[in-house]
Amino acid sequence: MPNRILGSLVICALLLFGASHAAAQTDPLPSWNDGERKTAIVDFVTSVTEQDGADFVEPTARIATFDNDGTLWVEAPLYTQVMFAFDRVKAMAPDHPEWKDDPVLKAVLDGDMKAVGASGKEGVVEILMKTHAGMTTDEFADIVSDWISTAEHPKLNRKYTDLTYQPMKELILYLQDNGFKTFIVSGGGVEFMRPWAPDAYNIPPEQIIGSSIVTEFQMKDGKPVLVRQPKVFFIDDKEGKAIGIQKFIGRRPIASFGNADADIPMLQWTIAGDGARLGMLVHHTDADREFAYDRKSTVGMLDKGIDDAQQGGWHLIDMKTDWSSVFAPE
Amino acid sequence: MPNRILGSLVICALLLFGASHAAAQTDPLPSWNDGERKTAIVDFVTSVTEQDGADFVEPTARIATFDNDGTLWVEAPLYTQVMFAFDRVKAMAPDHPEWKDDPVLKAVLDGDMKAVGASGKEGVVEILMKTHAGMTTDEFADIVSDWISTAEHPKLNRKYTDLTYQPMKELILYLQDNGFKTFIVSGGGVEFMRPWAPDAYNIPPEQIIGSSIVTEFQMKDGKPVLVRQPKVFFIDDKEGKAIGIQKFIGRRPIASFGNADADIPMLQWTIAGDGARLGMLVHHTDADREFAYDRKSTVGMLDKGIDDAQQGGWHLIDMKTDWSSVFAPE
Repeated sequence: MPNRILGSLVICALLLFGASHAAAQTDPLPSWNDGERKTAIVDFVTSVTEQDGADFVEPTARIATFDNDGTLWVEAPLYTQVMFAFDRVKAMAPDHPEWKDDPVLKAVLDGDMKAVGASGKEGVVEILMKTHAGMTTDEFADIVSDWISTAEHPKLNRKYTDLTYQPMKELILYLQDNGFKTFIVSGGGVEFMRPWAPDAYNIPPEQIIGSSIVTEFQMKDGKPVLVRQPKVFFIDDKEGKAIGIQKFIGRRPIASFGNADADIPMLQWTIAGDGARLGMLVHHTDADREFAYDRKSTVGMLDKGIDDAQQGGWHLIDMKTDWSSVFAPE
Repeated sequence: MPNRILGSLVICALLLFGASHAAAQTDPLPSWNDGERKTAIVDFVTSVTEQDGADFVEPTARIATFDNDGTLWVEAPLYTQVMFAFDRVKAMAPDHPEWKDDPVLKAVLDGDMKAVGASGKEGVVEILMKTHAGMTTDEFADIVSDWISTAEHPKLNRKYTDLTYQPMKELILYLQDNGFKTFIVSGGGVEFMRPWAPDAYNIPPEQIIGSSIVTEFQMKDGKPVLVRQPKVFFIDDKEGKAIGIQKFIGRRPIASFGNADADIPMLQWTIAGDGARLGMLVHHTDADREFAYDRKSTVGMLDKGIDDAQQGGWHLIDMKTDWSSVFAPE
């Protein structure tokens, strides 16, 4: 098979080019300011990749997990998936005149965010089920792709995929370059992320874990489809993140990154393993470049995550001082 | 980073060695006899990997899924996980004197397989829950590892991991060598497979999908544990295989391999996609080297899978004539 030898030579050329290219670079994390957090990351990666070091970890066991909302992209003032659901209510309303008689859906149509907020968790679930169920998985992926390619953040006026955090994307690549397999472990819907997250973060669909609803296998015109049902299957949040990691990955991460109290069980699960471990929470401290919120926030509430950081063994990333840039330039 | 260049050189040496080694081999599937099925496999792989061909598939989309029981290892006369459960009932019985008053568990302890069989699906579920729940995920993995390292098949008198099918293991490696990402999609328990399947099949834990029970996050002596609960979470069987593929992988396979009617939805889901597709079912036709069973079998029942093969577009692998060897030599 001479093609195979040729293929290997090409890979070798690429590898050597990549290696010398990387060697010429001085900093794999240019959007991180020098300081405690950057040092912690580099020290950790160095320790688990040094072949003869006490903390060496085989490449197959180098699993890193990332929350998405507020960790990899913007989540304030409202989770992006909720913005998507509101837009879907508006887009679908002409086909559903009966929605005008539903207080929650009417509030969305009227832009009455106070009434939506007052409807609480049950209101949000109703909105999500009306907008996220009833179509096939392929149809839903198309709807998400269409929306994400045009929708803009209401305050930052950029597409949501442009509001992914540059320092975290550098961190993902840095870990991948060092043999890590990177996963997203999000409370958000897995089928809401898979259409765009692979391009945005360089993480393939099968390494994206999230919440999901029940799907039903049906034959339609002689072909199988999976139809999304208005029923929760799995909530990948809080304790569910540790549970989801075990169910979907089946090995314990050695590094985890989040931004909220809801990420603490994932960090605990990660840190409780033997050997070198790294846990970090992004603290949103930058009202100028992004948003500042923590203990009292309705999105990404971070309270115990601050108080328990030292005892729990995780780091707090101070967005304002640790990141030299937040987003890629426009 | 001179270490990085050194590392790349080592990888190059290995790649070139591997390539010339492979080039010297004449056949990537030595345990497959020449014929229709072997030709179908090689033609399919060639067509999706030819860079300028009409059926070329990007490496990231080369997803292949394999059922486990009866497709990758022996499942007759009883699923291996059921044999494990029976052995666990016997091992745990001294701590549970009350089991003698339970007709199903008593039947297992008495070796009365007729009574066990008569207890039906409910009996099996009871046996599974008694033996598979109540411990942490780490403890369960240790129990499985201990058992699989010593238990032997009652008729073939070899360890179960030695009763994995050599032709299918060659097929997995052949696909991996051609850029495929290989997954197990089994009706069996995911946490029953993950302790041993990665070594047996060269497939990592995060690429193993199966049925599972609910787990609960608890703190125990200040450390998080996941405790297995006697409650079904997901049954990855029949239609559940297509559902599980979408939930856990999030992309449609281009090749799938099974052996039973329960694998048909997975094949349908695979074959319904655009472009070149390969679906195959192992037909157990070899009473001398393994077992012969199909339409009336209590394990791996294969009935519609035979009748609908042509119309459905999948191949039947005839174990007796297509495989020159079934297992690796003792």
